[in-house]
Amino acid sequence: MKKLTTDGNTAAAMASYATNEIAIIYPITPSSPMAEICDEWASAGKLNIFGKPMKVVEMQSEGGAAGALHGSLLAGALTTTFTASQGLLLMIPNMYKIAGEQLPCVFNVAARSLATHALSIFGDHSDVMACRQTGFSMIASRNVQECYDLGIISMITSLNSSLPVLHFFDGFRTSHEINKISVLEDREIARLIPMDKVAEFRARALNPNMPKQMGTAQNPDVYFQNREAGEKFYRSVPQKFSEACAAYYAITGRYYAPFTYYGAKNAENIVVTMCSSTETLERVIDDFNKHSDSKAGLVIVTLYRPFATAEFIKILPNSTKIITVLDRTKEGGSAGEPLYLDVCASLREHFVNIPVLSGIYGLGGKDFTPSCAMAVLQNMINTRKNHFTVGIIDDVTHTSLPLPNYSLPNKCTQCLFYGLGSDGTVSANKNSIKIIGDNTDLNAQGYFVYDSKKSGSVTISHLRFGKEPITAPYEIDMADFLACHNARYIGKYDFLPKLKDNGTLLLNCDWTVDELEQKLPANFKRELASRNIKFYIIDAQKIANELGLRGKINTIMQSAFFKLANIIPYEDAVQAMKIAAKKSYGKAGDAVVEQNYRAIDEGGKSLVEVHIPAKWLHAENEITTEYTQEKSDFANKVMAPIAKLNGDSLPCSVFNPDGHIPTDTAKFEKRGIAPTIPCWLKENCIQ
Amino acid sequence: MKKLTTDGNTAAAMASYATNEIAIIYPITPSSPMAEICDEWASAGKLNIFGKPMKVVEMQSEGGAAGALHGSLLAGALTTTFTASQGLLLMIPNMYKIAGEQLPCVFNVAARSLATHALSIFGDHSDVMACRQTGFSMIASRNVQECYDLGIISMITSLNSSLPVLHFFDGFRTSHEINKISVLEDREIARLIPMDKVAEFRARALNPNMPKQMGTAQNPDVYFQNREAGEKFYRSVPQKFSEACAAYYAITGRYYAPFTYYGAKNAENIVVTMCSSTETLERVIDDFNKHSDSKAGLVIVTLYRPFATAEFIKILPNSTKIITVLDRTKEGGSAGEPLYLDVCASLREHFVNIPVLSGIYGLGGKDFTPSCAMAVLQNMINTRKNHFTVGIIDDVTHTSLPLPNYSLPNKCTQCLFYGLGSDGTVSANKNSIKIIGDNTDLNAQGYFVYDSKKSGSVTISHLRFGKEPITAPYEIDMADFLACHNARYIGKYDFLPKLKDNGTLLLNCDWTVDELEQKLPANFKRELASRNIKFYIIDAQKIANELGLRGKINTIMQSAFFKLANIIPYEDAVQAMKIAAKKSYGKAGDAVVEQNYRAIDEGGKSLVEVHIPAKWLHAENEITTEYTQEKSDFANKVMAPIAKLNGDSLPCSVFNPDGHIPTDTAKFEKRGIAPTIPCWLKENCIQ
Repeated sequence: MKKLTTDGNTAAAMASYATNEIAIIYPITPSSPMAEICDEWASAGKLNIFGKPMKVVEMQSEGGAAGALHGSLLAGALTTTFTASQGLLLMIPNMYKIAGEQLPCVFNVAARSLATHALSIFGDHSDVMACRQTGFSMIASRNVQECYDLGIISMITSLNSSLPVLHFFDGFRTSHEINKISVLEDREIARLIPMDKVAEFRARALNPNMPKQMGTAQNPDVYFQNREAGEKFYRSVPQKFSEACAAYYAITGRYYAPFTYYGAKNAENIVVTMCSSTETLERVIDDFNKHSDSKAGLVIVTLYRPFATAEFIKILPNSTKIITVLDRTKEGGSAGEPLYLDVCASLREHFVNIPVLSGIYGLGGKDFTPSCAMAVLQNMINTRKNHFTVGIIDDVTHTSLPLPNYSLPNKCTQCLFYGLGSDGTVSANKNSIKIIGDNTDLNAQGYFVYDSKKSGSVTISHLRFGKEPITAPYEIDMADFLACHNARYIGKYDFLPKLKDNGTLLLNCDWTVDELEQKLPANFKRELASRNIKFYIIDAQKIANELGLRGKINTIMQSAFFKLANIIPYEDAVQAMKIAAKKSYGKAGDAVVEQNYRAIDEGGKSLVEVHIPAKWLHAENEITTEYTQEKSDFANKVMAPIAKLNGDSLPCSVFNPDGHIPTDTAKFEKRGIAPTIPCWLKENCIQ
Repeated sequence: MKKLTTDGNTAAAMASYATNEIAIIYPITPSSPMAEICDEWASAGKLNIFGKPMKVVEMQSEGGAAGALHGSLLAGALTTTFTASQGLLLMIPNMYKIAGEQLPCVFNVAARSLATHALSIFGDHSDVMACRQTGFSMIASRNVQECYDLGIISMITSLNSSLPVLHFFDGFRTSHEINKISVLEDREIARLIPMDKVAEFRARALNPNMPKQMGTAQNPDVYFQNREAGEKFYRSVPQKFSEACAAYYAITGRYYAPFTYYGAKNAENIVVTMCSSTETLERVIDDFNKHSDSKAGLVIVTLYRPFATAEFIKILPNSTKIITVLDRTKEGGSAGEPLYLDVCASLREHFVNIPVLSGIYGLGGKDFTPSCAMAVLQNMINTRKNHFTVGIIDDVTHTSLPLPNYSLPNKCTQCLFYGLGSDGTVSANKNSIKIIGDNTDLNAQGYFVYDSKKSGSVTISHLRFGKEPITAPYEIDMADFLACHNARYIGKYDFLPKLKDNGTLLLNCDWTVDELEQKLPANFKRELASRNIKFYIIDAQKIANELGLRGKINTIMQSAFFKLANIIPYEDAVQAMKIAAKKSYGKAGDAVVEQNYRAIDEGGKSLVEVHIPAKWLHAENEITTEYTQEKSDFANKVMAPIAKLNGDSLPCSVFNPDGHIPTDTAKFEKRGIAPTIPCWLKENCIQ
């Protein structure tokens, strides 16, 4: 066993690469890195537990990938794939075949929203829920560690039960979150994989020396009987899964089960859900139970299919008085969302007569915050609204729960970075997490919010560090340290409320301390002063240009962060950054490495502390940076809040239900956030 | 309004053709006739209610069809498609888009099984259930009449609710059943279609003169709100559907509702299900309630999505003590099948605390017989087995209900015909039904069982005639009249048990009455004698050859049937058959028509009544027609019963769960049923 700082996709890919011979791929966001990493490893000749490199084959579409995968399994090769969203939908026909023929394999899915009124590349469970009827077992991972652990357990379960497994986790939130995890040596994995079942699987392969026919057509006289003959396989899965978990626990000490209970033993208010939201709920339930007489608890669903109804009932505390089921999908016109239906049926079947509420959260990547979790708990105590949504303001059908002004007590250091797409901020932050995660006992978490404009748009990096494991799968709403890498953001994006009182603000700007008086808006100044913010500036652009780094400010800002944030001794950080720079830029020659070394040194040295003048408390001059062009209703009501990063505050009613928007609106979206602007120099022009 | 004798596919196609401008198709069994009929009508210039022929476009796959359909809807054309099974699965990604953008349209689906361990072209609900999460409304038709009625009501509902509708009915059982229905004039349909909504739909179209953007990408800040903004459309559907039903009722007197109750007012035992099985249940419940103290009732689900939970609860009698939900799909590993989950959730939500049982029936086209229906009712009274199957013998996981020896009292005339694929029996029977249906007040029903070998295999035609409407969507198990069109079937297929005592048997053979003594097996003779069967023979082959019809026996046998069955006066039948022959063969010239006229005349005249000798009661000589080659286990245990048309009796345990079968088994399937055998004539051979 060893520790590693990595993301969910890489963790799942590690489990998958080790235990499979072939991957048939057609990469799709946010699952692409799994396929890409496997391809990279395969090219580099990395060995799986069978002592060979994986064979990675890219097809022409997910439909083709699923077909090739089915064929590969029939040929007796341990085969996997990685997909999401519409890609997964194209695999559905083959999934019925793979399950119907009891072929073991694991699909790894970074669960993503489906295109409906609009496309979304972000996470929810619409895609995996569209496959719940295919006959695949389904295993849900909650965090980066589980992507790895349950990736391996999925493979063991699949081989032992002779049924395929859809292993899924939240797209972006888990697939792209960086966290510190513990991984096994290949020889430890090899001991867990049931080699007798691998041999059995291979022996079942289509083989001209022992011919048999698959994929025949059956008439009404026999199809039903043959279909039902496969039922016994489903009945064995919960047991096989539990056995795999027990074997895994024996080696790792990490416990998994079809359902896991968390919370007060005498809880009356139970939430049932799966994936990353369960971690937020755990922490909010801890806090809730400290202050409430009516206690709360959580049932974490890990084995979603087969849904073991008896085991579900067993895990509910006897004290249960009400249940809320949270689904991360919306199925228009259903009697309720999928997990809710399963829970209702389980209760019905076991004659447990408790009210059950159904809630929808997190569609299209909407953050499930501690405030959302608290709203869900409070709803059980108070109004008991059913078929609710949480995390939005629904002023059309009024489904939404009111969100309390609530955030969790925090034990770790939280840092926010506002960068500009392609300025290197995200890469530098990923590097910082690895430095801290891999060089210290500290745990580290990184999550990166881009919008789909990618290059040239805002990026927000959410970094957490702390002694305890970090289980906070939601964005930071109150940072200890906040870096704004682009001075143009001031007055445009209202980020100061996300920095706590007495926190540290780092601003990259080309202003002197004296110029700040004129450049900063009055409300910004007032806030700095009234909330006792520690304020630092740096002109990273200038340093970068002087060092010949042509505007690449990331290394300088990273060094400044380490200097100010005080998470590890600055000298250690400098050394680690230099090792990383050598590794990254070694190929480009010593001169480039040396440039980066100097950038690292300068980042720490060039910080200027701004002593906030007392008069800022009453600053009055207002600088408007608002673009004053006359705008359409759509531009004012919808585009403007989105452009200000306040899209979350928009209620349902401002949207056309069919997702249409006016044309000719790009002109209203002049963000003015580029650090440099091209000018036409008349005298240089040679026509 | 007018009466018409037709099948479910044609009925649905009529509704669809009348109300749509475009059909985008990729035909797949058993939905193909809908697309083909529309194409034929379009080619012939038939007009829809908008006064134009439909435009029919065939694509390269169902994926392409769904995409083109989506585009056509966005362009403001009323567009439809027809599909089933895997074809429907390929449409899933576009279905999310069509529903998400609230585009009205109707998909007509002849519901069919999905390929799992084996492919099946026959009916169940696996395909439509794989789409229940897409956001389409779903409307279920039970019979041929409803294919037409609810086809129109689906279009009205779709336009009024601005949501797409998946209109489905049982593949083959309903899509291919011929029955007598009542249809509207186009001008009556036109009055039902909300033209203001059609105009609204067209006004919403993408149009360069009023540009708007569709299909954008949304980020986590706004996707959820916009998704939820569409919820209001779903809430309106049950009301819009009920209104459409009311308007339809006003014209036709045929009543539909989201849920319909049938049975005793004080029923304690309630079955909930949809499509054709509900008609069998209605009749069995009537019979059951005559003999049982604990009464039964049925909830027919017509509007399956949106599932109106409150309306469902309202329709349950207050006396309800137990509910059985019958699903025609199997979702391995689920907490229960889809309709069962919806019912459990409805009860939970409305605090109704009644036990609910889940049953699976009819997979891959398995007949749902009155005996199956009775087993379901008895199970509620007796053992209350849950998660059962009905219609098979499950000796693996023991899910199956025991089947009582039960059949329904019968009021109509039932006729069975054993033909040989491509001998014209099925076509002639279809013609007979039309003659009876269209020329008399009698109701008629035809259903045709082929196996997937098609040409050269057994075909069984099930014909019913009677004064009352015929609602018997299951095969005939006890016929008044049975025709065996191929003497080779005797001793091979055990059909005499399906002929009632004192019934009429017609055998086509080249034997004289005297030869029967030697040719017929002893057990066959004994049965004829002991059960007082009226026995007729005819040598249709010889007559056909003499008339120059080269082995085409169908017209001769049809005439013989009309002569014996006595359903309409024989003279009227002859006249109607001759009109039909003129219509069918007119193009081929007078000589051919004349041949057929003579065949019709000969069919009646050439019948020979066989006076069954008393000694047949004790016939002892046994003629074995059994092929005696040494056979494998598979051939003996599985192939032999299937070849004898006894596949239904095979239990689950004889099948490999993954559907594989041995190779090299065709040699065991020598059926020997060809009426003529090619011989090699040495002297004619010129090398």
